Amino acid sequence: MRAYLDCYPCFFTQALRTSRMITSDEEKIWEILNHVGLSLSEIPFGATPPEIGREVYRIISRITGLKDPFQQIKESCTQQALSLYPEMRKVIDSSKDRLMTAIRLSIAGNVIDFGANADFNLKRDIEIILSQNFAINHYVDFCRGLKSAKRILYLADNAGETVFDRLLIEELTKPVIYVVRESPIINDATRKDALLSGIDEVAEVMTSGCDAPGTILKYCSDEFLKVYRAADLIISKGQGNYEGLSDEDRPLFFLLKVKCRVIAHDIKVEEGSIVLAKAGK
Amino acid sequence: MRAYLDCYPCFFTQALRTSRMITSDEEKIWEILNHVGLSLSEIPFGATPPEIGREVYRIISRITGLKDPFQQIKESCTQQALSLYPEMRKVIDSSKDRLMTAIRLSIAGNVIDFGANADFNLKRDIEIILSQNFAINHYVDFCRGLKSAKRILYLADNAGETVFDRLLIEELTKPVIYVVRESPIINDATRKDALLSGIDEVAEVMTSGCDAPGTILKYCSDEFLKVYRAADLIISKGQGNYEGLSDEDRPLFFLLKVKCRVIAHDIKVEEGSIVLAKAGK
Repeated sequence: MRAYLDCYPCFFTQALRTSRMITSDEEKIWEILNHVGLSLSEIPFGATPPEIGREVYRIISRITGLKDPFQQIKESCTQQALSLYPEMRKVIDSSKDRLMTAIRLSIAGNVIDFGANADFNLKRDIEIILSQNFAINHYVDFCRGLKSAKRILYLADNAGETVFDRLLIEELTKPVIYVVRESPIINDATRKDALLSGIDEVAEVMTSGCDAPGTILKYCSDEFLKVYRAADLIISKGQGNYEGLSDEDRPLFFLLKVKCRVIAHDIKVEEGSIVLAKAGK
Repeated sequence: MRAYLDCYPCFFTQALRTSRMITSDEEKIWEILNHVGLSLSEIPFGATPPEIGREVYRIISRITGLKDPFQQIKESCTQQALSLYPEMRKVIDSSKDRLMTAIRLSIAGNVIDFGANADFNLKRDIEIILSQNFAINHYVDFCRGLKSAKRILYLADNAGETVFDRLLIEELTKPVIYVVRESPIINDATRKDALLSGIDEVAEVMTSGCDAPGTILKYCSDEFLKVYRAADLIISKGQGNYEGLSDEDRPLFFLLKVKCRVIAHDIKVEEGSIVLAKAGK
């Protein structure tokens, strides 16, 4: 999916918000915003949002000298999610459709804003998503794909969400390769975040080779591409992976909460929807 | 007042919104946004919002070839305001404090969003503002200044609002020079818009020489600056003029509805407030 024009102001909002987390030096932030402005003019029309996001967050890291501004937030998110793990495990264990409940929880992990009032939002959003209607629900196809799949490729999104992914992986009853970002970008999960969530106990962890906040195949490693092309079932979590892979003709299922109107427009659902959507359907 | 960092994403939102009014050519709009990004990096830290706005709207005009994208909207706004003039005149005539009522109506003119549901908003907002508490109210100082003033300089803001200004001018009982923008910029009032509102029947109309969406003294004509420096009472309407003149030490009164959180923060009032504020107080 190429970036929409509405993404443009949003990138500046993101750059401003992230810069303010790192520094209170207004002139430095101004410099960051100016560099973002200069940089965007060099990105071709038709680029995907994670390609642009990659540039934006690279500029922030370069100018502030901070390679992983979200490190503490990511760790805190993961710890909070881990503290809820036993409770969520019970929800799955006592549910009629364990797999569907685990899918819902995995989407809940994609929605939580850990920035503020985390506990409150976390519990509320889990509750909402456990009973929310799907705007797109290709569950039957998913179950069919899962049944015949030999191995599942699971494309991770954010740190903390990783714990919710672990719950779903435990219900898949198939070998899983869990794919994280190559290096820190926003609050996306890296290998370190996956390990902190205990993913290595339930899946093989690999990186995509890509340092963008989404899976952009042209930036991925040959090792990942080989696994990706051979996969007979791919679970893609979150908006960034959707943005990178929405035009792909692969056995892909997108699991996400729709958190902005650009994505809502692209998927043709309402903002706030939850989606389990087969690629190309 | 210098631009806040939050103004940065807002300029892109404005550029996008305005460009979409003019063209549906996405690549052309993308080009505009890129030029805005390039241009902003050349504007020094510390510039005021109208200085930046001037550049943004110049780019839109240059790339689309449209000198006055808001022409029709401005005319429509003025016509709608004129249609309400007799009713508003009656409100003033039947009020206990004619001057205060005229000030409130003049602020109401500053708030109305003529873009959508104009009639509905117009009537509703007039009603609200006629009884809304001022967040800052230097009315006593204003009355004192008015009493001793020989001539009043009245800095206009938007087209349509001009009709509301006319109502206030009629209550000032002193000679008034009504100052408009030198050339079209957003929906700001030019000489043409002032004349369409009948301002020339109640005041002398002049331009500031400035083509920015606010009064930036360094871009104003010598003719205007002479009048400005000699003025013993200046009424400054709206956010753009406030942004340009907030640091001035002159007998200035700012009349406005606070429509964004940046201005709210700068004036230290809530967003949505109405303000009659003496400069430097």
